[in-house]
Amino acid sequence: MALCKIVVEYDGTAYRGWQVQENGPSVQGELEKALERLVGERVRVRGAGRTDAGVHAKGQVAVFPLPAAIPPERIALALNTRLPPDICVARSEAVDDAFDPRRDCVRKRYSYSILRSPIRTAIGRRTAWHVKRPLDLAAMGRAAAMFVGEHDFTTFCNRELAGRDNRRRVERSEILNLGPDAAGRDRLVYVAEGRGFLYNMVRALAGTLVDVGAGRFDPGEVPELLRRRDRAAAGQSAPAWGLCLEWIVYAGEAPPDFPPGLF
Amino acid sequence: MALCKIVVEYDGTAYRGWQVQENGPSVQGELEKALERLVGERVRVRGAGRTDAGVHAKGQVAVFPLPAAIPPERIALALNTRLPPDICVARSEAVDDAFDPRRDCVRKRYSYSILRSPIRTAIGRRTAWHVKRPLDLAAMGRAAAMFVGEHDFTTFCNRELAGRDNRRRVERSEILNLGPDAAGRDRLVYVAEGRGFLYNMVRALAGTLVDVGAGRFDPGEVPELLRRRDRAAAGQSAPAWGLCLEWIVYAGEAPPDFPPGLF
Repeated sequence: MALCKIVVEYDGTAYRGWQVQENGPSVQGELEKALERLVGERVRVRGAGRTDAGVHAKGQVAVFPLPAAIPPERIALALNTRLPPDICVARSEAVDDAFDPRRDCVRKRYSYSILRSPIRTAIGRRTAWHVKRPLDLAAMGRAAAMFVGEHDFTTFCNRELAGRDNRRRVERSEILNLGPDAAGRDRLVYVAEGRGFLYNMVRALAGTLVDVGAGRFDPGEVPELLRRRDRAAAGQSAPAWGLCLEWIVYAGEAPPDFPPGLF
Repeated sequence: MALCKIVVEYDGTAYRGWQVQENGPSVQGELEKALERLVGERVRVRGAGRTDAGVHAKGQVAVFPLPAAIPPERIALALNTRLPPDICVARSEAVDDAFDPRRDCVRKRYSYSILRSPIRTAIGRRTAWHVKRPLDLAAMGRAAAMFVGEHDFTTFCNRELAGRDNRRRVERSEILNLGPDAAGRDRLVYVAEGRGFLYNMVRALAGTLVDVGAGRFDPGEVPELLRRRDRAAAGQSAPAWGLCLEWIVYAGEAPPDFPPGLF
């Protein structure tokens, strides 16, 4: 039996996160409801990974058993008419039954959007973290570069994971300065790429980088923070609404070519 | 008595438009409430022009009597803590009492954002018009160029204005192709600049350009559409949520330099 692979875009504002929750709506739950409307029976959707409440995605990946009656590439359109306006399926295709969206991931990209200004934002309020303090971008860039490579990221993940194997390999960790927007606010995007990230890891990295920019940490302290293996040692966790799962790449695929961030 | 000039950004989704309405919240009304909280008395805010329900702005301009107790440039920050999250003041400054934000306008820019794809959008659903049909961009560009210059735009404004003096001078009218987004959807921005536009005019122009792109009109028909002076002769009115008032320029000011559109 073949599977259907879908690429999902969502505005995470209204959701308790990707995974089905008892206490509120989830993206996975909405996809399963839309699929049930489409194929007439309950279908389980498996995602490449969870995203937290309020986190957005341009390129989440999920699979479910391929419905027999619909051409695979038409499933995206058929689901879009049955999904709420803040979720859509960008692409659908048939894949081999052996495909596992989590295990087979080769690389994924997260972006974290930061608007640096004394002036807050109206139009961008749900898709960027507004930081009032001045930030030293050079210091942030030096600190970001120190996360590249294989490290134990216990200091930069949810406390629930303390004591587990928290080694991960970060392939890219970089601060981009997109320059000022219409109101003169600095638009910064933190880009993190790797095969996998720990629970809350990108938000802990982004929050700590903002603390570096504000002078709370020196970039040179990053190796010591990693060595401490203690979440309390690092900086704040950046809020959910600046984070976006940009894309997930599988064997034989080239990374999509579009600029990261939600500006 | 001096005036305070403010530049206002808003996500128009939740509002009945700029102007105070009896049947729902307005941007002007929210600004007046925030000002009353700040200065302790009712203050009238005068805008450079109305925007319709659901229309956005990066650079609406308004004035009100300068409060004595607060440095003019601090008023933006003081208002921002008292405004709802979907409205913010980007800048505030003292101006001469003779300044009239409507009459003294030298040029303003509107953008109209169009997402052209069979796939709809989730993250951009409130800030771009989703058009499913293929569009002939070259034809749209030729038609857009024909709106430049001084014309009677009765065909392209709200029917309420029929019979009035509806001549306006359009300085720029252009379709920009920003290329595909993450999901391969074409991002188009229609840019219209001039000293003043009629009620509903930019939405009528944008809607007609999409009809040209879809083949309903030929670009060569634009002069005849203008001559007809009949709203029914032209194309559809584009929906409110793709429209953004980008900036308004006054004597001695240079136009702000940032890319148009809400992508």
